Amino acid sequence: MGYHPHREVAVPEGELFIVSSPSGGGKTTLIRRVMEMLTQEGRKAYFSISHTTRKPRPGEVDGKDYYFVSRKAFLAMVDAGAFLEFAEVHGNLYGTSWKEVAGKREAGFDVFLDIDVQGARQVRGKVPDAVKIFIFPPSYHELKRRLLARRQDDAEVVRLRMQNALNEMREYGEFDYVIINDELEVACRELVSIVTASRLRSNRMRVRVESIVDEYARHLKEDS
Amino acid sequence: MGYHPHREVAVPEGELFIVSSPSGGGKTTLIRRVMEMLTQEGRKAYFSISHTTRKPRPGEVDGKDYYFVSRKAFLAMVDAGAFLEFAEVHGNLYGTSWKEVAGKREAGFDVFLDIDVQGARQVRGKVPDAVKIFIFPPSYHELKRRLLARRQDDAEVVRLRMQNALNEMREYGEFDYVIINDELEVACRELVSIVTASRLRSNRMRVRVESIVDEYARHLKEDS
Repeated sequence: MGYHPHREVAVPEGELFIVSSPSGGGKTTLIRRVMEMLTQEGRKAYFSISHTTRKPRPGEVDGKDYYFVSRKAFLAMVDAGAFLEFAEVHGNLYGTSWKEVAGKREAGFDVFLDIDVQGARQVRGKVPDAVKIFIFPPSYHELKRRLLARRQDDAEVVRLRMQNALNEMREYGEFDYVIINDELEVACRELVSIVTASRLRSNRMRVRVESIVDEYARHLKEDS
Repeated sequence: MGYHPHREVAVPEGELFIVSSPSGGGKTTLIRRVMEMLTQEGRKAYFSISHTTRKPRPGEVDGKDYYFVSRKAFLAMVDAGAFLEFAEVHGNLYGTSWKEVAGKREAGFDVFLDIDVQGARQVRGKVPDAVKIFIFPPSYHELKRRLLARRQDDAEVVRLRMQNALNEMREYGEFDYVIINDELEVACRELVSIVTASRLRSNRMRVRVESIVDEYARHLKEDS
């Protein structure tokens, strides 16, 4: 005992989970529910808040649902290189700032990004170790039903979203995982499983495992 | 509707999970419990039965715990190329036959192999898509306690197993996942998560996802 200096065991950095789906695919509801489940288990999970130039929908709160900013302010952030990804979707700008993600990961939080397929494409290049998850609608009719139920878009916008969804779904192979969002509770459990498994990858377990191996080797030497 | 011919959706092939640990690491208990959990959820899971030349321990049943065979019979199977992997461990031969694994995977079962680190090394080369999981003992003292509690080995054998365990643990980086087997229930839930996540990998979801995309494209065309 004692010939090893006391070492601070570093907190393993949190993972970055990119959760994408076509509009209406249900990714936001899914992530919110999974955040609750993880937090209840005492796990450190953070739902990244995006910047957007879109107007708040009824009930949406600035700094909670989004950071609502003007187009001018958004473009100034783009100029300053503040965004990990940003995209114009259906006429509005959406973006995730580097600041939003990096600090939380360093503190050991798993960070969840709720971004569309365009945005996911940008993050893939910049954060190669991100875990990329595509949420599939279960069927054409179910996606259409969900988009119409939101009652926030006119028929033409719904038609456009339905067409975009097809092109986006065809990119599923660029993601690590696919979850079919048919029953919410099943989909949530599946996402939690992906999060749990990602933490157990051997390269992610390095810090804990090497500390066990070092101590083991020390005891084995002392015992013989 | 109907311009697509009716297609049989193929059953996706089951995964192969290689579960390894040092002797006394608790992998067999863990896999048994996880098999129960998966089966209760209605999932198709199969715990592969190995051939061995070791004598049955009290309570072990031929064709359930192992196929107990003579050394001569085992070596004849080796000659015939019947084994996916085999190894001599502490003086006894252990092996997994191809026949045991292939049929079950084709029928859609996830197949679990309980094999030592030597055996895992052989399977890695032959089945590159296998998911490889290393079960870590939580500490030196706990592993020693477990080995002594089995009361089946003398002190010299325990010492040898403890030494081998260190060399084996140092190979953890060759595995996809590491589970630290401290509390059995936690370790079981972690293994179930790995199994669930593995099934959701996008290349594994191909059959289901492409059937959704094809149907979606058809409905979109009809609707417009």
